[in-house]
Amino acid sequence: MQKSLTGLLMSIAMLAVVGVPAGAQTAAADPDAQRKADLVTAYKILVNEGILDSFGHVSVRSAKDPTVFFMPRAMPPALVTLDDLVEVRVADSQPIDPKGRRVNGERYIHGEIYKARPDVMSVIHSHSQAVIPLSLTPIKMKPVIAQAGFLPPATPTFEVREVRKAGDRGMQVTDSTRGAALARTLSSHPVALMRGHGEVVVGSSVKQAVVYAAYIDINARMQTQAMLLSRDIVALDEPELFKPEEFDINRPWEHLRQKTLDDAAKAKVDRAQFGLDQTQEKR
Amino acid sequence: MQKSLTGLLMSIAMLAVVGVPAGAQTAAADPDAQRKADLVTAYKILVNEGILDSFGHVSVRSAKDPTVFFMPRAMPPALVTLDDLVEVRVADSQPIDPKGRRVNGERYIHGEIYKARPDVMSVIHSHSQAVIPLSLTPIKMKPVIAQAGFLPPATPTFEVREVRKAGDRGMQVTDSTRGAALARTLSSHPVALMRGHGEVVVGSSVKQAVVYAAYIDINARMQTQAMLLSRDIVALDEPELFKPEEFDINRPWEHLRQKTLDDAAKAKVDRAQFGLDQTQEKR
Amino acid sequence: MQKSLTGLLMSIAMLAVVGVPAGAQTAAADPDAQRKADLVTAYKILVNEGILDSFGHVSVRSAKDPTVFFMPRAMPPALVTLDDLVEVRVADSQPIDPKGRRVNGERYIHGEIYKARPDVMSVIHSHSQAVIPLSLTPIKMKPVIAQAGFLPPATPTFEVREVRKAGDRGMQVTDSTRGAALARTLSSHPVALMRGHGEVVVGSSVKQAVVYAAYIDINARMQTQAMLLSRDIVALDEPELFKPEEFDINRPWEHLRQKTLDDAAKAKVDRAQFGLDQTQEKR
Amino acid sequence: MQKSLTGLLMSIAMLAVVGVPAGAQTAAADPDAQRKADLVTAYKILVNEGILDSFGHVSVRSAKDPTVFFMPRAMPPALVTLDDLVEVRVADSQPIDPKGRRVNGERYIHGEIYKARPDVMSVIHSHSQAVIPLSLTPIKMKPVIAQAGFLPPATPTFEVREVRKAGDRGMQVTDSTRGAALARTLSSHPVALMRGHGEVVVGSSVKQAVVYAAYIDINARMQTQAMLLSRDIVALDEPELFKPEEFDINRPWEHLRQKTLDDAAKAKVDRAQFGLDQTQEKR
Repeated sequence: MQKSLTGLLMSIAMLAVVGVPAGAQTAAADPDAQRKADLVTAYKILVNEGILDSFGHVSVRSAKDPTVFFMPRAMPPALVTLDDLVEVRVADSQPIDPKGRRVNGERYIHGEIYKARPDVMSVIHSHSQAVIPLSLTPIKMKPVIAQAGFLPPATPTFEVREVRKAGDRGMQVTDSTRGAALARTLSSHPVALMRGHGEVVVGSSVKQAVVYAAYIDINARMQTQAMLLSRDIVALDEPELFKPEEFDINRPWEHLRQKTLDDAAKAKVDRAQFGLDQTQEKR
Repeated sequence: MQKSLTGLLMSIAMLAVVGVPAGAQTAAADPDAQRKADLVTAYKILVNEGILDSFGHVSVRSAKDPTVFFMPRAMPPALVTLDDLVEVRVADSQPIDPKGRRVNGERYIHGEIYKARPDVMSVIHSHSQAVIPLSLTPIKMKPVIAQAGFLPPATPTFEVREVRKAGDRGMQVTDSTRGAALARTLSSHPVALMRGHGEVVVGSSVKQAVVYAAYIDINARMQTQAMLLSRDIVALDEPELFKPEEFDINRPWEHLRQKTLDDAAKAKVDRAQFGLDQTQEKR
Repeated sequence: MQKSLTGLLMSIAMLAVVGVPAGAQTAAADPDAQRKADLVTAYKILVNEGILDSFGHVSVRSAKDPTVFFMPRAMPPALVTLDDLVEVRVADSQPIDPKGRRVNGERYIHGEIYKARPDVMSVIHSHSQAVIPLSLTPIKMKPVIAQAGFLPPATPTFEVREVRKAGDRGMQVTDSTRGAALARTLSSHPVALMRGHGEVVVGSSVKQAVVYAAYIDINARMQTQAMLLSRDIVALDEPELFKPEEFDINRPWEHLRQKTLDDAAKAKVDRAQFGLDQTQEKR
Repeated sequence: MQKSLTGLLMSIAMLAVVGVPAGAQTAAADPDAQRKADLVTAYKILVNEGILDSFGHVSVRSAKDPTVFFMPRAMPPALVTLDDLVEVRVADSQPIDPKGRRVNGERYIHGEIYKARPDVMSVIHSHSQAVIPLSLTPIKMKPVIAQAGFLPPATPTFEVREVRKAGDRGMQVTDSTRGAALARTLSSHPVALMRGHGEVVVGSSVKQAVVYAAYIDINARMQTQAMLLSRDIVALDEPELFKPEEFDINRPWEHLRQKTLDDAAKAKVDRAQFGLDQTQEKR
């Protein structure tokens, strides 16, 4: 009853945010088809970029029903296909009809962030080795490269011990309490590091989350390497930060995507799409 | 006579530990077939992950007869197949019927560890370049990433000079004395670094040893990089460590395994196996 | 009118520098064909070497008309072909007949450098991760490897903030003001780093710019790694620097090019060309 | 006349050292065939390991006539075949019958080392990026890994400025004076670093030189990384060093070689050869 009410309120909130037309759900085409396809592509890209390992996972919120999201069953990320996607409730991070298949134990990361952040349409949790060294130290990640202007001046690092109750064990976010605490650390940011564990990256689309994750990796490596050379490094200042809508993510997405293709698939890329956007390049 | 007695006692100890049913040895199927197949897969994974080089080796204890173990003849790790496996005695690290083929001179690492550790079913010796830098310094490897909760608070480093007698030369573990000393340094841990040489990793199965070796590499790199940034790093505390049975190794094993497959083989992976385990994800 | 005059003067200046024979433009063969082909090869090489990412770009000045240059429409660098090249005016960095296709927003980097440097025939702008760490610190890149003797004793780093007017935002060089400022920082050098952004590399040919970019990457990594070990490093002194004409770029170009070929294409490489140059190896 | 005498004395010296049977030169089979084949394989291995770049080169002394050596014409290392080998005189580093083809300008490195070191049968000059950082600092390379026990306690670094005469330019070893100076720095060692340039590695066979070069790379990286963590590192002590004959180079050679093969070629590797050597593994 409580859950249904939450779900209804969430649906209304979502409609307000994403502006889904009232009749979209009755359209012949599945409004989630593109999101699911992007999710599968995201797995290919993030494995190829070395961001996802054995345990990372990505999800996308449903366009049809923002109280649910899709994520794959527990499996090697490189092998994920559309058939592996399971529908999970935002309210309690439980799968709706898993058909006997288990989703990841850390699905609470996704559910609690979708609950706290109506603007978020996609969540990535990875064990990125680019960010872990920073996460182990008192040093905060700062935006240092031009393409990381979406980062806050200092990226928060989640410390699971702060929500650890007596008798609690482990570092994983496998319940709603930990998930909600991580969402609080994330706050309104696009990324939070997780000490000794990795990161969570969110976006208003799968594409945005993936492109952000790729540039966070580069930013973390550049900051780390620069700080080994000198503690006197220049981070982006306020006029160098940018709003999400100022960053054309289609080009890096397309670049990252084609890196996952073999020669035959590369030859079939729709080349007519390139260079048609007449707006100025943003970054 | 002495050796036979040791073998008999070892067999009894093993049965108690691994609970092999009395009739297992008479079963039509070879109870060692899966272990041997996993051993061959382990070579493919560890070469692919850059953990095994020209001289590393992996072994598995026999399920049929815990007084013997299998390891390949001396050869390039990437080419190992079932036909290359040689049966070696735990008691004295000597091959039983090598058919003229030599096994590695450092087989004493394996024999002496199997002798000292009835719980160990698989041993990996590698020249992992991820751990060697730490091994050259007074710094101990600590668990710093979530998946390395199987590590002790400080991993011991084997110093071969401590057992070097007058006139002894070299760093290799090519006799029982050095092997037994390494086993003492390893103690009850899953891993010991070897100064300037590499590491030895053990597990209750080939899969566990391989997955441990993969995460030890990542842990060592993350600790090293973090310590270059700051000496004030956070290692896992006691509630963040875990027991072997709390770590679902099948998922990283399957992930690492599929990374060794070409596209055709990937297409044949039994996908029905994924997500069926209804227990919560452990790590 | 102003633009035409500039163009005319530029044409004359160019003819003086590159010595294009008067009748060249009437020749049956397109004098730009080789330059364009080299430009496409440059994309393949620079992607393969990890120097170009989603947003990097390369251009070449026209041999026929030095007041224009060619660069691809905005697209993933790995997919660039001859058909993607767009003609752009040096005078104002605007495409001449884009046929609805957009070129990169940072084309002003190219236009302004061609304007300021009549000797420059090719410009590379990349987000090279080898140089960014140095660019974030007060440390200047110095030539430290034998093949980087084309570098000045200290490579300048462009600081976009120095030309930022009140209200200006972002780090990109998307107008003539910023492009001209970058050209002033570059001065007569072959390379300028760009703080938090990457670099611009120029050459008297596509080949030279590409080979320079490759060695700048190696030089930056070697300097960085050496400075982590010791602040007392040896840079090249004056007798170790060299003039462009003393550096045989054909060999590294051919080496880098064949690294982009598959086995079938490698087998077709014209091997008869090798070792025919009877001049001494320069570097 | 002088040259012929030198050649004769060299031949006699060589016969004494390598023990070539008197009748070997009249054998039907070319005694240099295996050496040349190994040289071609060496190129494949060293390119694959990232040790040779655009300008590195490898040579082998003739078994038939130790006053000459073979090295390829100036060309991309990855493409070298038997047909590219040119015979060069030890006495003056000049090609005997180049058929219009040029050999590398730095062939004096090879010639002068063969002249000074009758025990040397193969010379590698590379721009290895593993050793260059150390070469730029006052820190000497030391043996730190078990397989680098062939290294001297401190590897010498060649400083070309020490033989630079007034008016001399460049860092390359393109004449006999510089070559002889490098040979003096090398002295009786298997390797000398070259400041800002790379290294020269020598062996009693192509195989030995290649295996040494591979382990020098690993040793340099391990020492570098360890020294970033701590200045208190443990290098090999005297009993941990070994003589060349104590190091079984066939196994790493075979391992490195098979890494250059595609799947079809791997399937054809003569597996019967493995594990037949009944001597103990040395390292």
